[in-house]
Amino acid sequence: MIVVMKRGATPEQIEHMIQRVEELGLKAHPIHGTERTVIAAIGEKRDEHRTSLESCPGVAEVVPILAPYKVASREVKPESTVVRAGSLAVGNSHIGMIAGPCSVEDVDQMIATARAVSRAGATALRGGAFKPRTSPYSFQGLKEDGLKILAVARDETGLAVVTEVIAADDVELVARYADVLQIGARNMQNYRLLEAAGATGKAILLKRGPSATMDELLLAAEYILNAGNPSVMLCERGIRTFENHTRYTLPLASVPYLHERTHLPVVVDPSHGTGHASLVTPMACAAIAAGADGLIIEVHPNPEKALSDGYQSLNFEQFGQAMALCRKMADVVGRQIALNQRTP
Amino acid sequence: MIVVMKRGATPEQIEHMIQRVEELGLKAHPIHGTERTVIAAIGEKRDEHRTSLESCPGVAEVVPILAPYKVASREVKPESTVVRAGSLAVGNSHIGMIAGPCSVEDVDQMIATARAVSRAGATALRGGAFKPRTSPYSFQGLKEDGLKILAVARDETGLAVVTEVIAADDVELVARYADVLQIGARNMQNYRLLEAAGATGKAILLKRGPSATMDELLLAAEYILNAGNPSVMLCERGIRTFENHTRYTLPLASVPYLHERTHLPVVVDPSHGTGHASLVTPMACAAIAAGADGLIIEVHPNPEKALSDGYQSLNFEQFGQAMALCRKMADVVGRQIALNQRTP
Amino acid sequence: MIVVMKRGATPEQIEHMIQRVEELGLKAHPIHGTERTVIAAIGEKRDEHRTSLESCPGVAEVVPILAPYKVASREVKPESTVVRAGSLAVGNSHIGMIAGPCSVEDVDQMIATARAVSRAGATALRGGAFKPRTSPYSFQGLKEDGLKILAVARDETGLAVVTEVIAADDVELVARYADVLQIGARNMQNYRLLEAAGATGKAILLKRGPSATMDELLLAAEYILNAGNPSVMLCERGIRTFENHTRYTLPLASVPYLHERTHLPVVVDPSHGTGHASLVTPMACAAIAAGADGLIIEVHPNPEKALSDGYQSLNFEQFGQAMALCRKMADVVGRQIALNQRTP
Amino acid sequence: MIVVMKRGATPEQIEHMIQRVEELGLKAHPIHGTERTVIAAIGEKRDEHRTSLESCPGVAEVVPILAPYKVASREVKPESTVVRAGSLAVGNSHIGMIAGPCSVEDVDQMIATARAVSRAGATALRGGAFKPRTSPYSFQGLKEDGLKILAVARDETGLAVVTEVIAADDVELVARYADVLQIGARNMQNYRLLEAAGATGKAILLKRGPSATMDELLLAAEYILNAGNPSVMLCERGIRTFENHTRYTLPLASVPYLHERTHLPVVVDPSHGTGHASLVTPMACAAIAAGADGLIIEVHPNPEKALSDGYQSLNFEQFGQAMALCRKMADVVGRQIALNQRTP
Repeated sequence: MIVVMKRGATPEQIEHMIQRVEELGLKAHPIHGTERTVIAAIGEKRDEHRTSLESCPGVAEVVPILAPYKVASREVKPESTVVRAGSLAVGNSHIGMIAGPCSVEDVDQMIATARAVSRAGATALRGGAFKPRTSPYSFQGLKEDGLKILAVARDETGLAVVTEVIAADDVELVARYADVLQIGARNMQNYRLLEAAGATGKAILLKRGPSATMDELLLAAEYILNAGNPSVMLCERGIRTFENHTRYTLPLASVPYLHERTHLPVVVDPSHGTGHASLVTPMACAAIAAGADGLIIEVHPNPEKALSDGYQSLNFEQFGQAMALCRKMADVVGRQIALNQRTP
Repeated sequence: MIVVMKRGATPEQIEHMIQRVEELGLKAHPIHGTERTVIAAIGEKRDEHRTSLESCPGVAEVVPILAPYKVASREVKPESTVVRAGSLAVGNSHIGMIAGPCSVEDVDQMIATARAVSRAGATALRGGAFKPRTSPYSFQGLKEDGLKILAVARDETGLAVVTEVIAADDVELVARYADVLQIGARNMQNYRLLEAAGATGKAILLKRGPSATMDELLLAAEYILNAGNPSVMLCERGIRTFENHTRYTLPLASVPYLHERTHLPVVVDPSHGTGHASLVTPMACAAIAAGADGLIIEVHPNPEKALSDGYQSLNFEQFGQAMALCRKMADVVGRQIALNQRTP
Repeated sequence: MIVVMKRGATPEQIEHMIQRVEELGLKAHPIHGTERTVIAAIGEKRDEHRTSLESCPGVAEVVPILAPYKVASREVKPESTVVRAGSLAVGNSHIGMIAGPCSVEDVDQMIATARAVSRAGATALRGGAFKPRTSPYSFQGLKEDGLKILAVARDETGLAVVTEVIAADDVELVARYADVLQIGARNMQNYRLLEAAGATGKAILLKRGPSATMDELLLAAEYILNAGNPSVMLCERGIRTFENHTRYTLPLASVPYLHERTHLPVVVDPSHGTGHASLVTPMACAAIAAGADGLIIEVHPNPEKALSDGYQSLNFEQFGQAMALCRKMADVVGRQIALNQRTP
Repeated sequence: MIVVMKRGATPEQIEHMIQRVEELGLKAHPIHGTERTVIAAIGEKRDEHRTSLESCPGVAEVVPILAPYKVASREVKPESTVVRAGSLAVGNSHIGMIAGPCSVEDVDQMIATARAVSRAGATALRGGAFKPRTSPYSFQGLKEDGLKILAVARDETGLAVVTEVIAADDVELVARYADVLQIGARNMQNYRLLEAAGATGKAILLKRGPSATMDELLLAAEYILNAGNPSVMLCERGIRTFENHTRYTLPLASVPYLHERTHLPVVVDPSHGTGHASLVTPMACAAIAAGADGLIIEVHPNPEKALSDGYQSLNFEQFGQAMALCRKMADVVGRQIALNQRTP
C-alpha cells in the first residue's frame, strides 16, 4: 500500500509511520516528493492494516495497491470457471438460461412453467420457496412444500432447480431439493449464510447487493470459495441509484469488468434489474451482447395473477421470443446457449 | 391505491381493471380525466396487490396511498416510544449516548474505555464480539469471549451493553450477555434474524442498510414489532452514494422525517456515517441539533492500534470534548443527556 | 393530479383544498377512503401547480398523473423521429455511428481518424473544439481553429461533423462549421444554451446529465423542440452512482424506456459511460442489442498520447472490431448501420 | 502520482512507462513490490497527465497524490476567508443568514419579506429574477423587473441582495443590481458563466451540483478564483441519491470536510436540501452545529400561493423560530450571527 503523508508532516511523523509499517512486517520505502512524502509499504498482505495506519498523525490517506480478494481473482486462476449443476452449465463458452416464477405457487403452475421455459431454451428452473419479503405482511413462500413442488418439476422436465435460501438454518433442507442455492441480494453480506451454503458443495448463485461494490461482491464470493466450494456464479441484478423509472439500475459494464478481474461466471437478472416486463427482453439481449454467461428471468403463466413480482414477469410467449433473440445474440459473440437435453 | 391507466386504454381494459380491483375486495372508483382514466381502489390493505395489478393490460402505473408499515407508524401510536435497557434510555426527552470500540479486543481495553466514556457522559457501552467483515481475511471478533469481557465491563461501570448479533443461531447466546441487540446495516433485511432478535424481548438497535429507503427501514422494524417486541431503536448510519470523501453519506434529514412518520426513537452513528475521526464531532453535534434521540460513537484508547475501524474512532479526550458540545446542543433543543448513575 | 390528504385531515382542510384546486381551473373530485381522503384534480395542465398545493394544511402529498413533457412524448407523436444531418441518419431503422477523438488536436490527427472511422463504418465524426474541463488547468480545446480542422476532415471524407457547443455566445460560430451541435452532460440544464442551439435549426445531440432523471432529460429536449427544432437526439452517457470501477454507470434500460415514452432517437456513449477502453466494445454491442439508434465512441490514433480522455479511447483497430460486432448485433435486432456513401 | 503496473507487466512495459513519465518532465521512481511494480512520478503538476498514462500497456491504474485544485486549497492559504458584500459577512467567526422567496413575484411580497427576515436575523435577501426551470412551461422569473424590485427592497431594509445569474450574457445586468451573484447547482460546471461572474469582482455564491464531488466543486471555485476574484462562498444544497422522501439528500459532513480542505466559507441550503418545509428548521440547526458559515433559506409570506417552491418555504413565523434556534446553536459552537445594522 501507499501511505500519503500530509503536506507539512513533520520528520517525526514520517519516522513514526516508517516504524509502524515495519512493525506490521512490511518494508517501508519513503519517497520525498516536491510537496509531500509518500511511503510505499512493500510485502503487504492485502491491506488488513490499512485502516489503522490511517489514524496515525500526519497521514493524509492510505491507498491500497492489491485487490482485497485472492481466490476469486483471475490473477490466481487465469482460466474461466465453468459451473455445472445438473442440466445447467454456466461459464466460458456455455451460456445458461435460468427461468421460472418469482414464487412457487402450486404444482400446476410450476410444471406448466418448467415445460414452457424448457421448450423455449432454459436449462434451469427458478422458483422461490423461501421468500425474503420487505414487508412482514407479504406472501412469504410455501417453504418445504415449495421445494417439493420444485423437485416434481425437475423430475418432469430434467431442469436443474435454482432456489433461494435465506437462512443458515435452512441450508441443509434447501440443499436436499435444490441443484443451485441462490443467495439473494439482501443476504450478499450474510456471512454465516455464505459459509453454510458454501459448505454444502452445491453450486451457488450469488446475487450482488444493491449497494455492493465489485470488490465487496468478490469478497462475498471469497467467503464461499474459502469454504472449499469452487462453484460460484456471480449475479448482477441491479444497483440502487436515483433512477426511479426502473426498479433498480442494471449496470451491464459489470459483466466485462468482472471477466477481467475474476474467473467466476457472471449471470445477469434483467427482471429485478429493470422491474418492468417490457424492459426485460431488451436488457436480456444486451446482457448477452455484453458477454454474460447466463441469465435468470422471471416467467409466469399469468403475470397479472402472480403472488409476487408479476409486473416484471414475462409470460410464456414473451419468454420464447426473448430466448430466440438471445440465441442469435449468443451466436454473434461466439457463444452457445445449450438446450435442455430432455426437452422433447 | 390509485391505478393510472395509459392514455388510450380501451373501455375493455378499464372494465377489466375495475373487475380485478373488486376481486381483491376493494371498491373501484373510476375517474375519467381529460387525458386518462384513473381508478381509485378504496378499502385497501396496504398495497399487497399493487404489484400484480401493474401487469394488467392498459395500466400505466399503480400509486400506493397508504404507508406500507402499520405498527411502527405514528398514525397508530402518536406518542413517542422511549426504549430503556439498563442504564440506557432513548426517546422523547431522553438522549442516550452509546460509545465504545468497534471490536472488543481485551479486558483492559474494554474496562478503560467503559470508564472513560461513562465519565464523559455515555450511558451505554458498545463493542463488537461477532464482527461481520467484508473480507474473510479480516479479524472476525472474539465471539463469546468478547461477550464475557463486555459483561465484566458492565459490572465494573454499570453501563448497559450494546453489541451486534449477526446470525439467528447466535441470538440466544448474545442475549445472555447483552442489554441491547444490535442488528447491523448488512443484516437489516435478514428477516430471520430480525424475528429471532425480536423474540428475545431485548431492546433492539436496528441499523439502516446503506441502500435502504425509509419505508424499508420501517418495514424491517415492523418485523421486530410484529414479533411482539416494542423496544426498537432505529439507527441512521449513512447511505452509499457517489461521494467518496466520506465512507458513507450521512443524511441527517432522516431524523426529523422519521420523527414525523414513526414513534420509534432515532439514533445516529456519526462514526460509520463519516468514516473519518475528524468529522465525527461536528456530525455528532449536528445529529443532536437535528433532533436525534441518541448517538453511537466509536471510541478507542489508541485508535492507531485498533484491530478495526481505527480511522473513524475518537480517543478518550476527543470523545470528552464531543460530549461536552453535545450536552450544550441538547440544551438548545430542550432535551437532556442523562449521566450514568454509577459514574463516580 | 391526485392530492392525498393526511389521515385526520379536518373537513375544513379538505374543503380548503377543493377550493384551491378549483381556483386553479381544475375540477376537484374528492374520494373518501377508509383511512384518508384523496382529491383527484381533473383537467390539469401538467402539474404546474403541484408544488404550491403541497404546502396547504393537511396535505400528505401530491401525486402527478401526466408526464410533464408534451412535444417529446410518443403519445403526441407515435411515429419514431429520424434525425438527419449530412451523412448521418439516426432513428427508426437507421443506426448512426459517430466516432472520433475527445479533442481536436491537429489536422493530421483528424484526417487520419476521419478516414479510419469512415472505413470502419462511422457516418459522423466527433471531435471537441470547445472543451468544458473540470479543471481550469486542463487543455480547453483549439476553439475556432479546431472547428476549421473538423470542416477540413468533413471535406476530405464526407462525414458529418458533431461537435460540442458550451455557451450560447458560441452557438452561431459553432453552427457555421458543425452539422450536429452537441450539448454536453454538464450543460443539459443550461436552458439559455438549449434555446440558442435549438434556434439554429441544426440537429442537436443532447447528452443526459449525470444526475438527470428521464423526465428532466425529456424536459431539456422540450426546451429545444419548443424553440421549433424537431431534430433532437437524446444521448445516454452514464449516470453518477457509488460504483467506482467505471467512470460513470451506464444504464442501458434507458434505451427501451425512452423508446416507450418518446419518439426521439436515443444514442449511447459507451466511452464516457464506462471510462475504460477495454469496456467500450462490450457496452457498444450491448447498447445496440438494447435498441440504441446510434453510438458515439471516442477513437484516437494513439490513445496514450491523447490530450484528453485517452484512457477511454479506442485505437483504429479496436474501433474496426467493435463496428464489425455492432453490425452483426444490428442484424439480430433487425436494424441497419448504414455506411458513409463517400467511403472509397 | 503513483502508476500501478499490472501483475505480470513486462520489463518493456515498465521501461516504457518510466520513459513516458520522464517525457512529461517528472522524475520516475520505480518500486518493485512482491506482486507488482509501482512507479512514483515526482514533481507532478496536479495530474494533468494522469489520464493519458492510464492507456499505456501494462498499467493497472494511476493514483493521484495531490489535490487537483490549488488556489482554493487551505494548504496554500491557511487562514479562513471572510466574504463580505454589503450587510453580509460570511466566514471565520461570522455566520451569515440569507433568506427570501424562491422567485421575486412583486414589490409588496419582496418588501414584506425583506422586513420580516431582517427582523428575524437575516443579513441578506435572496430572490430569483432569472429562474432556471426544469420545464419550459414553468414560470421563468420577472427578469430585469425582478432585479429592480430586489434593489427597492435593499434600499428599504439595507439587506444585501443575493440573486442567481443563469447565463454569461446576463452577468453585467445582474451585477448592476446584485451584491452577490448566485451560480445555481445546474450551472456549477458552466465554465463560461463562472469566468464571467468571477470577472465582475462581485461576491459569488457557488452552489454544488447535485452530482458533483468535493473536488469538482473546488475546481469550479478555482475557475472563479483564477479569474482574480477571491470572494467565493461554497454552498452545499444537497446531492441526488436514491432517497425519495427528501427532494435531495443533504450531506452535512461536507461542511467540516470542506473546512479541512479549503479556506473558502461554506453556506448550507436546507430548503433545496430537503424539499419540505417541516424539515428545514432541524436541518438549519444541524448545519450550524456542523460548522456552517451561513444558511440560505426560502421564506415566503404565504407559501401555499408561491409561484415556485412553496412546499419548501417557511412563512415568517417559522423563519423567526428557526433563527432563534440557530442563534443559540451558533453560541454553542462559539460563533455569532450578526444582525442587520439597519433593522429598526
